[in-house]
Amino acid sequence: MTGAGAGTGSGAATPRRRGRPPRTESAETPATRDRILAAAREEFSERGYDKTSVRGIAKAAGVDSALVHHYFGTKEQMFEAAVEVAFAPVLVARESVIEGPLDGVGERLARTIFGLWENPTTRKPLLAIVRSAVNHEAAAAVFRRLVSTQLLYRIAHRLDLPDAELRAELAAAQLVGVAMLRYVIKVEPLASADPEQIIRRVAPVVQAHLTAPADP
Amino acid sequence: MTGAGAGTGSGAATPRRRGRPPRTESAETPATRDRILAAAREEFSERGYDKTSVRGIAKAAGVDSALVHHYFGTKEQMFEAAVEVAFAPVLVARESVIEGPLDGVGERLARTIFGLWENPTTRKPLLAIVRSAVNHEAAAAVFRRLVSTQLLYRIAHRLDLPDAELRAELAAAQLVGVAMLRYVIKVEPLASADPEQIIRRVAPVVQAHLTAPADP
Repeated sequence: MTGAGAGTGSGAATPRRRGRPPRTESAETPATRDRILAAAREEFSERGYDKTSVRGIAKAAGVDSALVHHYFGTKEQMFEAAVEVAFAPVLVARESVIEGPLDGVGERLARTIFGLWENPTTRKPLLAIVRSAVNHEAAAAVFRRLVSTQLLYRIAHRLDLPDAELRAELAAAQLVGVAMLRYVIKVEPLASADPEQIIRRVAPVVQAHLTAPADP
Repeated sequence: MTGAGAGTGSGAATPRRRGRPPRTESAETPATRDRILAAAREEFSERGYDKTSVRGIAKAAGVDSALVHHYFGTKEQMFEAAVEVAFAPVLVARESVIEGPLDGVGERLARTIFGLWENPTTRKPLLAIVRSAVNHEAAAAVFRRLVSTQLLYRIAHRLDLPDAELRAELAAAQLVGVAMLRYVIKVEPLASADPEQIIRRVAPVVQAHLTAPADP
């Protein structure tokens, strides 16, 4: 088995069609959409925003480029959809992080974020998001939009303080910075430190940013 | 005009020499070396590590590629030299940051780092370093080496605590994270916040990472 679509025949007998694919029941299904999304996530993770093309995604998904455009629009919109999928675990975790008592929110947030970074399956798309957002304004815009609407506004709403959004961002900055130095740049001893030790050091900082009285 | 060496004739008449350039007084001077370094810094800042070539640097400096190799070696070594130049203000600031009383080191460090990011002249190479280090292992290695040997070891030495390096890195993480969200990704309201307000919030965190009793 060497991948989707390799089953029925070889090369010359079944030439690749160019242009819009025939609209058959089998092509346009939720499963096809998911396959394109999975391929996009993989391509963006592997190659970064710049080197990923709609054509490459279509090829990896075994469909025509036109079908990718049909489902997802432009490359930037395709990226946004792929990032949303990569962000999904963060969004799921968000509820439990934000819903619980405010007292322990710093630790819950730190534990959740480092849990995602420690898991190779979720780390890979996170790395891709960081790499793309740092280098491409389009990708940065997607990142900004998701962080703002999905995470910060909700935390800020829960805090109910006038500077709540700034607080949430400074807390996020501590987590983003540790992720950068530990997982992306890999500075030692931070890169090899026990995650529990890092959470123990970082959780009180996140908590203080969020809930401590202003201007100490 | 289509590039260096295209002026005098075509192909066969004046074949391009490979390897070491002729040693003339006018070419090999400290001024030439500085010009190459300035061109490299500009090229890496503008294009990032990936798209910068030794050839492009040579062209921008108005010298032969071989002279770039002669002074600086490989592209990675050229990058390291350019980064060191960009890092120079940090290194100068380092002394005053580290030499003063430990009590105010958090604020001095925060003030120094944000001072560099707020200044467009120093921000540009810092942005280039971050972008390159996030995307290229060679650039990340240069960044790691500089951060470790030039900054962390010295702060750690000054702190004289068993976990001093980890402390210095967690403090750096808070500053790196704010820089990422404010200057690179540009998340609001952090991106437009008054620098003094940010320093007021971040300085105590940096100070606590460096000098607070462990495991509170």
